[in-house]
Amino acid sequence: MKNIVYIATSMDGFIADSHNNLDWLTNLPNPDGSDFGFSKFIDTIDALVMGRKTFEKVLSFSEWPYKKKVFVLSRTLKKVPPELEDKVEIVSGDINDIISSINKRGFFNLYIDGGETIQSFLKMDLIDEMIITRVSIILGGGIPLFGNLDNQITFKVLETIKLSDNMVQTRYVRGN
Amino acid sequence: MKNIVYIATSMDGFIADSHNNLDWLTNLPNPDGSDFGFSKFIDTIDALVMGRKTFEKVLSFSEWPYKKKVFVLSRTLKKVPPELEDKVEIVSGDINDIISSINKRGFFNLYIDGGETIQSFLKMDLIDEMIITRVSIILGGGIPLFGNLDNQITFKVLETIKLSDNMVQTRYVRGN
Repeated sequence: MKNIVYIATSMDGFIADSHNNLDWLTNLPNPDGSDFGFSKFIDTIDALVMGRKTFEKVLSFSEWPYKKKVFVLSRTLKKVPPELEDKVEIVSGDINDIISSINKRGFFNLYIDGGETIQSFLKMDLIDEMIITRVSIILGGGIPLFGNLDNQITFKVLETIKLSDNMVQTRYVRGN
Repeated sequence: MKNIVYIATSMDGFIADSHNNLDWLTNLPNPDGSDFGFSKFIDTIDALVMGRKTFEKVLSFSEWPYKKKVFVLSRTLKKVPPELEDKVEIVSGDINDIISSINKRGFFNLYIDGGETIQSFLKMDLIDEMIITRVSIILGGGIPLFGNLDNQITFKVLETIKLSDNMVQTRYVRGN
């Protein structure tokens, strides 16, 4: 059972710019149409867990991008668009309880997505692995990946790869 | 003529923790006593330019670590400790003027150090190269490497290397 973060940030640690846009990420040159290992990563996970804001951002994309089950953490959201009813489930409550009930249903490797959700998981030391793609741009402001923590959290570097002239991907696992 | 940043940060982009300490960096396991390329880098530069706070931090180290000339940006500092008088010079004024007068004196490749100084240089788009060593720890707070910018700045990735289980070093040059 693993909770894994897979996310792109700017050099200064933002996951969206100050207008909540991702142009700086989606407009990167990509002549080979590579997904930079994303679908391979998705094959390794059983389900996604994301916050409401990320869910709403994904809803604004031209098509629903996930084949795996998505759990949306939200106290306010009551239902999802009809076409997503079999793909998306709204959950709320204590994070440990949510994760354990998701695990019990057979979803073991969870892709944890969205800034606030990742921050909540890190605060409770619930992240086992982080795959961070750092785009070589300084945005100067926006929505941060990381937030305040009471305790430092150490990871180990598994590998780092130059994906393109504009991207470096580094894999970390929890540990000293 | 190049202005180069060479700095270590946490995963969440802090160059010192919330007590202005560097233990998380200096206490990393380093069985081979490697300097991870630092002295090789120092060989490539002609002088350092740092802010007063960084200078004062360096003064607290057991010995003065730099063989190259150090220019300290400060409006308040008037003199340096006597034993450093031939090694350190205080400069103040407009950054462009300072850099051009340093360049005219034969110091072309400058190592720009210190959070606020780096931020000032980035605001004026005066950084040509960044060598960032990212330590695999989330500090959760501290002194940030990056600050607010009015305009995004793009870099190109030259290379990324896993230096140890706890460090990734990535080299960036200014450009799209």
